[in-house]
Amino acid sequence: MNHFTQLDHQFMARALNLAKKGRFTTSPNPRVGCVLVNNGDIVGEGFHVKAGSGHAEVNALAQAGNSAKGATAYVTLEPCSHFGRTPPCSQALINAGVQKVICAMVDPNPKVSGKGLAMLNAAGIETASGLLEIEAKALNIGFIKLMTTNIPYVRCKLATSLDGKTAMANGESQWITSPEARKDVQALRAQSCAIIAGADSILVDNARMTVRWSELGQVQQYYSECGTNNNIRQPIRVIIDTKNRLTPDLALFDVSVPSPIILIRKSIENSLQWPHFVEQVVVPMQLSGFVDLPSVLALLAKRGLNDVLLEAGKTLAGAFIDQNLVDELILYQAPKLMGENTQGSVKMPSVEHLSQAKNLMFTDVTMVGKDIRIKALFK
Amino acid sequence: MNHFTQLDHQFMARALNLAKKGRFTTSPNPRVGCVLVNNGDIVGEGFHVKAGSGHAEVNALAQAGNSAKGATAYVTLEPCSHFGRTPPCSQALINAGVQKVICAMVDPNPKVSGKGLAMLNAAGIETASGLLEIEAKALNIGFIKLMTTNIPYVRCKLATSLDGKTAMANGESQWITSPEARKDVQALRAQSCAIIAGADSILVDNARMTVRWSELGQVQQYYSECGTNNNIRQPIRVIIDTKNRLTPDLALFDVSVPSPIILIRKSIENSLQWPHFVEQVVVPMQLSGFVDLPSVLALLAKRGLNDVLLEAGKTLAGAFIDQNLVDELILYQAPKLMGENTQGSVKMPSVEHLSQAKNLMFTDVTMVGKDIRIKALFK
Repeated sequence: MNHFTQLDHQFMARALNLAKKGRFTTSPNPRVGCVLVNNGDIVGEGFHVKAGSGHAEVNALAQAGNSAKGATAYVTLEPCSHFGRTPPCSQALINAGVQKVICAMVDPNPKVSGKGLAMLNAAGIETASGLLEIEAKALNIGFIKLMTTNIPYVRCKLATSLDGKTAMANGESQWITSPEARKDVQALRAQSCAIIAGADSILVDNARMTVRWSELGQVQQYYSECGTNNNIRQPIRVIIDTKNRLTPDLALFDVSVPSPIILIRKSIENSLQWPHFVEQVVVPMQLSGFVDLPSVLALLAKRGLNDVLLEAGKTLAGAFIDQNLVDELILYQAPKLMGENTQGSVKMPSVEHLSQAKNLMFTDVTMVGKDIRIKALFK
Repeated sequence: MNHFTQLDHQFMARALNLAKKGRFTTSPNPRVGCVLVNNGDIVGEGFHVKAGSGHAEVNALAQAGNSAKGATAYVTLEPCSHFGRTPPCSQALINAGVQKVICAMVDPNPKVSGKGLAMLNAAGIETASGLLEIEAKALNIGFIKLMTTNIPYVRCKLATSLDGKTAMANGESQWITSPEARKDVQALRAQSCAIIAGADSILVDNARMTVRWSELGQVQQYYSECGTNNNIRQPIRVIIDTKNRLTPDLALFDVSVPSPIILIRKSIENSLQWPHFVEQVVVPMQLSGFVDLPSVLALLAKRGLNDVLLEAGKTLAGAFIDQNLVDELILYQAPKLMGENTQGSVKMPSVEHLSQAKNLMFTDVTMVGKDIRIKALFK
């Protein structure tokens, strides 16, 4: 058991706050922050902005210069030991003469976990890990899940009335939740590696399923601070269209926002003129005629997508939940009652008895505008 | 605008806490607390325990004795000016030589509002009101509504899954919420003047609809403190049985808990042997064959019942909500998803379009055991 001081906690908390700044951009990489402290003073700090740019440690070392010599590094994730798109951070820390490295958590990738610390130890650098580990894990929950299970972390977003309704029986529908809640969904979407939606949702609203960055004022401010300007990442759009109903004229395929689309289809259809950012993929179907959802998630795992936001109607969302493929529920509830003459939010074919109901555990409840946002983990 | 000091706030907060002690017993009277302060010291305090026993001011004056002379009285409700079951408290305060009276709110009864303060002023006593008024009003919200509108305050309790479900389509049902939530409902029930339930709910569970005091440990402790022992008030049970389906052999009519029952029926049925605490009442029916709910509430208003807890299934609860007769929703949500093959919580015949959905405003969200309790006011 390591004994961390109060100052250790403060510096690691600062490193975590730095790491969070990368929450919209690092995908598929993890969010990482680093603080270098020498004689009690912060001499350098940094975070990972996006794949291909410097890792947190390298950015902090660049800021510290010669002051890194003899410093303690607080890193939210174990420094890497391998050459990826950048040289290994452990070597960089050794080269800079850092004296001690404290990390919040070891690398979750079983292939490299512990190797960074071992490399540091071999160079005579003192190491410790586990400081604010719970917070660090929450920040990279998708990265951790993919690394340890090879399945992306799935969040299911629902927006309903207090009695769990989303639309009238005749399909009459409108925004049920408040503008604040919808803005919150945009932020959620912006932090996800990918989103999944069904063709129905696209067709009903002619939806683009892109992040409307203009609605996220604070985020834009952050981007101008860290110099990425408007070169902002969009989550990959995964659209389940197994009846081949979507056509290139839809707003979804607007070339002015050329963010990648994976179109899950029953067959490749090259007679139509798809934009360059659209990839058609055929995935196995189940006997029921419904797409095989584990195959969809396996496809996304292969693409290195850590976390997915499921923004689907009752049938698709219900199928994911029914098959125990969802990790977390994000439920926005509007202060409304709609009654029975309406449509519900989840359709779960296999739940026929109360004992088969899906059990969750609440993790957070908060007001968002006039609505409530409930977060819960599936058990 | 009165300028109250910090000490004024503290003493009134104490008076409000005293008033709250009567929350299970004062019905149909309001909850009232009183603190007497002389030269900065509390010289007497009291609260109203139950109808027929001393009012808060009288209890506080009895404790203060001669020290009441020259004291300031902090009372959560304007002292009464009329002879009711007890002599007027304003006169008692005058007789005791109190110098100043601060109350949280004036009497909501338009017939007497302001008269108590006027009586005190006429006797040369300084008065002020409006200190912690919002808190004081919340404590007697039912009393205030009945006094100002002649309709009881109606709370509707629902217990559902996160997708608003209560039972399977085939009727399969069980406790959906946790024991803690059910205990919380008991406390809610215990604070209500009356509860309303439908014959269906009674028949399905052979329910007694009484307060199970044994489950409310803290309450029992309070009772032993204020000397009421086990002589505990039960809310009046109002059962909608317009098809005359209930029979005296049900647990509801168990003579060991002889708390009043108002049985709303299509006709008086004297051929059966009802216990003495059962009163059969015939209330007008609507053309639809459903009981006229405003008539039910008018009946309860006549009996001086300030607030009613509606513990009903989707049809009766839905009808109340549909007709805009509910003031507040108390919704317990279990961390479960049940899916579509299930029964909803509210059936509202007149809601056919989204624009007709009922709008509420959240006032409180809290965890109760593993569940969430949401409080919301109907707009």
